[in-house]
Amino acid sequence: MKKKAVVLLSGGLDSAVTLYSAKAEGYECHCLTFDYGQRHRKEIELARRLAEKSGASFRLVELKLPWSGSSLLDKGTDLPRDRSIDEIRSGIPNTYVPARNTIFLGIAASFAETIGARAIFIGAHSEDSSGYPDCRTEYLELFDKIVKCGTRAGLEGKLGLRFPLIDKNKARIITLGHSLGVPFEFAWSCYEGGPKVCMRCDSCVLRAKGFQEAGLKDPAAC
Amino acid sequence: MKKKAVVLLSGGLDSAVTLYSAKAEGYECHCLTFDYGQRHRKEIELARRLAEKSGASFRLVELKLPWSGSSLLDKGTDLPRDRSIDEIRSGIPNTYVPARNTIFLGIAASFAETIGARAIFIGAHSEDSSGYPDCRTEYLELFDKIVKCGTRAGLEGKLGLRFPLIDKNKARIITLGHSLGVPFEFAWSCYEGGPKVCMRCDSCVLRAKGFQEAGLKDPAAC
Repeated sequence: MKKKAVVLLSGGLDSAVTLYSAKAEGYECHCLTFDYGQRHRKEIELARRLAEKSGASFRLVELKLPWSGSSLLDKGTDLPRDRSIDEIRSGIPNTYVPARNTIFLGIAASFAETIGARAIFIGAHSEDSSGYPDCRTEYLELFDKIVKCGTRAGLEGKLGLRFPLIDKNKARIITLGHSLGVPFEFAWSCYEGGPKVCMRCDSCVLRAKGFQEAGLKDPAAC
Repeated sequence: MKKKAVVLLSGGLDSAVTLYSAKAEGYECHCLTFDYGQRHRKEIELARRLAEKSGASFRLVELKLPWSGSSLLDKGTDLPRDRSIDEIRSGIPNTYVPARNTIFLGIAASFAETIGARAIFIGAHSEDSSGYPDCRTEYLELFDKIVKCGTRAGLEGKLGLRFPLIDKNKARIITLGHSLGVPFEFAWSCYEGGPKVCMRCDSCVLRAKGFQEAGLKDPAAC
């Protein structure tokens, strides 16, 4: 019987590559996707299709918290646009969602323990990212300890956190995904919820730079 | 202006004492209560009344995860009954809810950061508890690090986790609550959802022992 893994799948590029990495390691993958009121809701439907295409199961959790604190949830706040890489790397932008990964990983730990999974996969990385505090190695290493100390499965040595992309930049993530056969046309990165990618938000800027550096064509860019 | 604190308030005895402790320290308290499908739903209404009585604000978050894994959520599974203190301390019982505190604390961190609170209070303690892994000092110290490393407010030194009851046994918690004027008649401990306390579940057994050792009468016991 295959070992099970829970994969946090946002429907974006990084989590898509993470899903295919877990699959390549031989895990039976169970994807967990959140509807948390994000403005780029299109990624939810794409997450479902990515899970299906990869042969993984798909579970959607609705989590609408009665507060916001982020331009990613609040359409009344403008997203950062047309920033250079240096500007993107300069601090925590207003797209930061307070404690998002802690909440998502906590729920993933609960799901993993309930289905007997051996690993939780998250596609966070700190290179070419938007400076979110909960996407750094230090944070993820701590959360691995939380899982190993704060759950029964963790205490028994049966569950841990995996973050295979953490040290990779966007170009290397794209190259890895390409070699694993990730269908990038189903991976949505744009923070805007429009019908086409905007090519101006931080996420679009980082993705375009990544494909360019990897020497590949982005099938989702028009 | 008073410093704000977010208090995880279950409606049980420990969190009630924690709320009054935070208040006694001078915090403006914002209570966070979860409707997570617990069978002892009565505690939700009592949490609301406890918050009101103490002069704190009250926020209810609905969080129904599409899996269970605990007798506290699944009425088809029997609760442990009539266990001795030694039996209660002997391992993790089926009332354990996978990763519950990690999920609750993650959401509390999000709320705290959004309202500019300086502390998150949780009433967990390991003495006279049911052996839950996420109620131990080691776990809570790790989660404090998660808050300080994984949120913007934490990184700026403005947010941390407080767990003032951690080393106290039930009798000392009750004595402290008594001195702080906690209205114990509004603090519900019984795991069963019945109209009266059952006096047989682990939670009732621990509470009765605590009041006895503290030399006080429990106003909620019939």
